[in-house]
Amino acid sequence: MSGNSFGVLYCVTSFGESHGPAYGGVVDGCPPGLELSAADLQRELDRRKPGSSRHVTQRRESDSVEILSGVYEGRTTGTAIGFLIRNEDARPKDYSAIAEKFRPGHADYTYWQKYGMRDARGGGRASARETVVRVAAGAIAKKWLRSRYGVVIRGYLAQLGPRKIPFRTWDAVEGNAFFAPDSDMVPALEKFMDELRASGDSVGARVNVLAEGVPVGWGEPVYGRLDSDIAAAMMSINAVKGVEIGAGFACIEQKGSEHGDEMTPEGFVGNNNGGVLGGISTGQDITVSLALKPTSSIRRPRRTVDVRGNATTIETTGRHDPCVGIRATPIAEAMLACVLIDHALRHRAQCGDITPPLRFAKLPSGG
Amino acid sequence: MSGNSFGVLYCVTSFGESHGPAYGGVVDGCPPGLELSAADLQRELDRRKPGSSRHVTQRRESDSVEILSGVYEGRTTGTAIGFLIRNEDARPKDYSAIAEKFRPGHADYTYWQKYGMRDARGGGRASARETVVRVAAGAIAKKWLRSRYGVVIRGYLAQLGPRKIPFRTWDAVEGNAFFAPDSDMVPALEKFMDELRASGDSVGARVNVLAEGVPVGWGEPVYGRLDSDIAAAMMSINAVKGVEIGAGFACIEQKGSEHGDEMTPEGFVGNNNGGVLGGISTGQDITVSLALKPTSSIRRPRRTVDVRGNATTIETTGRHDPCVGIRATPIAEAMLACVLIDHALRHRAQCGDITPPLRFAKLPSGG
Amino acid sequence: MSGNSFGVLYCVTSFGESHGPAYGGVVDGCPPGLELSAADLQRELDRRKPGSSRHVTQRRESDSVEILSGVYEGRTTGTAIGFLIRNEDARPKDYSAIAEKFRPGHADYTYWQKYGMRDARGGGRASARETVVRVAAGAIAKKWLRSRYGVVIRGYLAQLGPRKIPFRTWDAVEGNAFFAPDSDMVPALEKFMDELRASGDSVGARVNVLAEGVPVGWGEPVYGRLDSDIAAAMMSINAVKGVEIGAGFACIEQKGSEHGDEMTPEGFVGNNNGGVLGGISTGQDITVSLALKPTSSIRRPRRTVDVRGNATTIETTGRHDPCVGIRATPIAEAMLACVLIDHALRHRAQCGDITPPLRFAKLPSGG
Amino acid sequence: MSGNSFGVLYCVTSFGESHGPAYGGVVDGCPPGLELSAADLQRELDRRKPGSSRHVTQRRESDSVEILSGVYEGRTTGTAIGFLIRNEDARPKDYSAIAEKFRPGHADYTYWQKYGMRDARGGGRASARETVVRVAAGAIAKKWLRSRYGVVIRGYLAQLGPRKIPFRTWDAVEGNAFFAPDSDMVPALEKFMDELRASGDSVGARVNVLAEGVPVGWGEPVYGRLDSDIAAAMMSINAVKGVEIGAGFACIEQKGSEHGDEMTPEGFVGNNNGGVLGGISTGQDITVSLALKPTSSIRRPRRTVDVRGNATTIETTGRHDPCVGIRATPIAEAMLACVLIDHALRHRAQCGDITPPLRFAKLPSGG
Repeated sequence: MSGNSFGVLYCVTSFGESHGPAYGGVVDGCPPGLELSAADLQRELDRRKPGSSRHVTQRRESDSVEILSGVYEGRTTGTAIGFLIRNEDARPKDYSAIAEKFRPGHADYTYWQKYGMRDARGGGRASARETVVRVAAGAIAKKWLRSRYGVVIRGYLAQLGPRKIPFRTWDAVEGNAFFAPDSDMVPALEKFMDELRASGDSVGARVNVLAEGVPVGWGEPVYGRLDSDIAAAMMSINAVKGVEIGAGFACIEQKGSEHGDEMTPEGFVGNNNGGVLGGISTGQDITVSLALKPTSSIRRPRRTVDVRGNATTIETTGRHDPCVGIRATPIAEAMLACVLIDHALRHRAQCGDITPPLRFAKLPSGG
Repeated sequence: MSGNSFGVLYCVTSFGESHGPAYGGVVDGCPPGLELSAADLQRELDRRKPGSSRHVTQRRESDSVEILSGVYEGRTTGTAIGFLIRNEDARPKDYSAIAEKFRPGHADYTYWQKYGMRDARGGGRASARETVVRVAAGAIAKKWLRSRYGVVIRGYLAQLGPRKIPFRTWDAVEGNAFFAPDSDMVPALEKFMDELRASGDSVGARVNVLAEGVPVGWGEPVYGRLDSDIAAAMMSINAVKGVEIGAGFACIEQKGSEHGDEMTPEGFVGNNNGGVLGGISTGQDITVSLALKPTSSIRRPRRTVDVRGNATTIETTGRHDPCVGIRATPIAEAMLACVLIDHALRHRAQCGDITPPLRFAKLPSGG
Repeated sequence: MSGNSFGVLYCVTSFGESHGPAYGGVVDGCPPGLELSAADLQRELDRRKPGSSRHVTQRRESDSVEILSGVYEGRTTGTAIGFLIRNEDARPKDYSAIAEKFRPGHADYTYWQKYGMRDARGGGRASARETVVRVAAGAIAKKWLRSRYGVVIRGYLAQLGPRKIPFRTWDAVEGNAFFAPDSDMVPALEKFMDELRASGDSVGARVNVLAEGVPVGWGEPVYGRLDSDIAAAMMSINAVKGVEIGAGFACIEQKGSEHGDEMTPEGFVGNNNGGVLGGISTGQDITVSLALKPTSSIRRPRRTVDVRGNATTIETTGRHDPCVGIRATPIAEAMLACVLIDHALRHRAQCGDITPPLRFAKLPSGG
Repeated sequence: MSGNSFGVLYCVTSFGESHGPAYGGVVDGCPPGLELSAADLQRELDRRKPGSSRHVTQRRESDSVEILSGVYEGRTTGTAIGFLIRNEDARPKDYSAIAEKFRPGHADYTYWQKYGMRDARGGGRASARETVVRVAAGAIAKKWLRSRYGVVIRGYLAQLGPRKIPFRTWDAVEGNAFFAPDSDMVPALEKFMDELRASGDSVGARVNVLAEGVPVGWGEPVYGRLDSDIAAAMMSINAVKGVEIGAGFACIEQKGSEHGDEMTPEGFVGNNNGGVLGGISTGQDITVSLALKPTSSIRRPRRTVDVRGNATTIETTGRHDPCVGIRATPIAEAMLACVLIDHALRHRAQCGDITPPLRFAKLPSGG
């Protein structure tokens, strides 16, 4: 399979460039009979939308989605679901100044060298605007997972640059522009972002995402592990440089007696494993954490080379997110949803005749 | 594709269980004409072999590999390369005591629930012994990458539990049982492991792995990114709970002006991106870091349930590595090699007619 | 991979229904740098277009294609090429009479039973109108194959119902509505079709398609054979019930001394093998022949059942092709082109360093 | 996926050469809990075995199969099933005379040109002996299909060279060396073969294969059609040059009113469609017909070229089947079984929640 599709049975194909006519996608393999309308996709797209606060890019896009196929009389038919999101505020001319240079930390250089050419309008195909397709595809996955299995997928901003944001309550997350799980921290985050924006610089972030209600048994050993596919999905999001499942890097310093989550008839005690053992879901919450690097398009002069290899400097004045992590929460949720539906389908394909032999007195939980 | 294969064009398929008759694999897609013998695979297998020091499992396996196809008169023919490694020191009876219980932190429980049954002899398919297949497949990949492109792949143990092992020299790595890059630290590591083993507990580790000499342009946007495939490959290794590329999680606190590696006519200044931008190799070193959790089979009593869901306790007395990270270096190298050859082939498929337009005065390096 | 995509490296994804808003597709993996515009796709789409003669469906569609991505400044960028063809003459009401019944020989019944529902507007996803996507994707493949390797792909109608149309000249093919290779036969074909149309019945056809100039070496043993992938591609075209390569079914009665094409320094003597041996191209013409069944939507009363399983009769009065074979030539060409580009890329991925050791005095030909 | 694997969810990977140490395969994705032993595979392998009559190759192979993984206590575990068949009667020296020349009609030439080298011992990887892997993998598929769905897959020799063998009774098929469905014809077939063998020539054949009991709904539109995957599977068998589903090429001359199988509350009337409509199974018998070309290794002098391109002649004196069609029946059955189980799994993955809304008064049958 080529690089613009992912998923084995719930297969998402994506196309589009930042300043071309449109983005679009195809979701293949969605089960039939799911109630679905453009509004289901739009709701998630609006969460990711640019221009929704002063802390993100000021590009004005309604991100209106049109479903072109695969839905009939309000329900999915089981055939390919095509959808389209027209670009409305494309300004390719903004980029003429940088078409001949490479932004440090950006894919400008690698596309140029790989393909012998590049679409220099914004990031072209490398733009994070491509994530509209992921969010739309994820919205369908989320809806099916919730209606079929009661799976709930949600995430939050866990760190903004140096500022850690400890989890306090899901109620806060949708009430602020940062997806921060603590409303009390929002003023400080706003102040931090205002100063950052004024400085012309950018910063990294950490996003955590969870799936609750995943049944035991999803995931395929040994290369098709659930956590392996989650890692791939997350690392494919623009700017992601690190992925953790469960205890993640903290497991290095743990002892086995501390890390291995004990079991009782009431379920697991602790969730260091992040809901995955041997690549297969345990029935606990799936917990994932991502590191997103700071945006490479910044308003500060930096050394670079031009397309002929000569030394020069660059600063980027287009409309950019000073922290791509701020809008990353719905994207990470979408990718997790797409991986989970894919494995839900793969699992029932192979093990559709199996009833898990062991039922806990209580449903297993993250303890 | 099902879960026991990976790779698009350099496709590795694996089979075998810890206490079954044999492990084996098939490498499909290897270019023809590569000089290859069983000795090439054996050399890497010997680096991963159990029983080579007192710090690892005492299972005695020669891990002798037999090539069954795909090589004729000492060279690869372009057809599927099948290979076989017989298990010699299988002791399935060792496990009768734990066949009815689940080891905390182990895949025992998830296999049981997913498949409605499990091969309880050791970890069955979930055993880390499966990595013999990866190492053999990686040996072929490594050899081709080196002979065709001069790519060198190597790794080292960067942390053992709480003990960080700063990189000092490659010369040290093959000279000790830990793959530690600093001989002076070995006595301390040995002491640490002796105490750990005596305590019956286990510990996590960090392994770093690098690829030097990778040309610019390998990797496919947007889901088939080189770093996405590396993340999947690494997270599919038993016990891995976190993956970083380049600066990894440190990028969260970096500013864009600090993270984005500047460029000069002499190449990149710094390598925060770990040799990948936009999912495509930059020509710098590819740098990857993994977190491995502590082994779940430990000689300490732990709460668990049995296959009927009743509370019980377990302690594992079989032969196990108290730190799987110690033998993980050749495995991580192998997985990186398999991903890189796959992308080398994918790149020349699509872009075989492209010459990278920009040649640096010097070859780009990690600075 | 799910059912709406095909191809490993040149991967085509399709969506759309006969009476929905649009058809569209995504071509992933096209090499960068190919000159391409919507006109290149439109030229092929116009060859397949409905309503172009009285012998085909009278549905009025311009089949205007819009390229949405993957092309920049007139050349492919190497990223996914998305394209869209809006339906203009959809008349879903035409089908209300048949929404509750199954047309004999049509996919109505199987979709209903598989998915528990169906889009009853025309054939929905099962409509042969889906082949617009194939033709558009094939146009790109054809252009690349021609410009990069000089491969020429073309086909013709070889039989219309009982009337065989022996090959006479390529010059005739584009000059009549049947893609018949003999202008002199056209009046008889027209008379046959006029009578058939008046009778309300339909008829089958045979289409032959060839690729000239394919280099030796494309195709992968043993399951990824070139002829295996061609067979799959052809059999996936609506109404196709049989596929032959080279001598096809005639080989049953051949002796080995007759069938096996001898070789001389001037090339092959004969082409019984249709340009493929052991699944790999020989350098001769690739020759393929298809059987297309008669259209199932006919204006003649037939016994069937309704969606509740009760006996009833049906006759179909919508706009339909009385012989789908008439417009099948460009579709078969497109599918052959897609398979060939896929294998061209796969071949150079694995064997990019190989020069075929033997050069014939003359280029091998079909003799 | 590379060329030595096939199937999406029931994925078969194959390796081995005619005169190398062994053939082997990996079946990935088999549902857990299936009773399975080596004897199940052996039974099918024995049906295909060489040397079982004077009409086939006299190579003496027991084709003993060893299962290496994926089965525990007599049942499949859901993990990869690896198996091995050692070559016992390899005589690589037999081929030294032809190592420098190409057999007309054989893959010798294309392998040589594709890979720049070839394993000249017998056909190497191109040998039809590779079909042992298919038969072993198909045996597992057959067993699961039969036990889970009552699907019965069987085939027969329908034509041997010019001699048509009309179907008379399944009872005859296993009682003669030809898989002929009419015992009375066997003496004539034997006489024909004795004369053919004496002449040093070879001949083609037709094999028909059926699957009875396949439920409605298997197969994925539009490229992942059941008939498309069947066509690919059959065309991948050595020597196959044509594939038909249902009426096959006879549909060309049929009228729609004749071809389209009418439906009544008792089921379908006729089975021109061969059990597939719109790429999805109808619940009728799946009927497939194959054309196999005459063996290219014959004892008659033929014109060819040597590896330097010089004119020469060749005649092949090794041990070969004068008609590969004679042993092709179990192979075709195996391929059909592998495709069907793959689609059974794919169907329940996507449509596992769907009950076919329409139940016929009687089970649909081929009428």
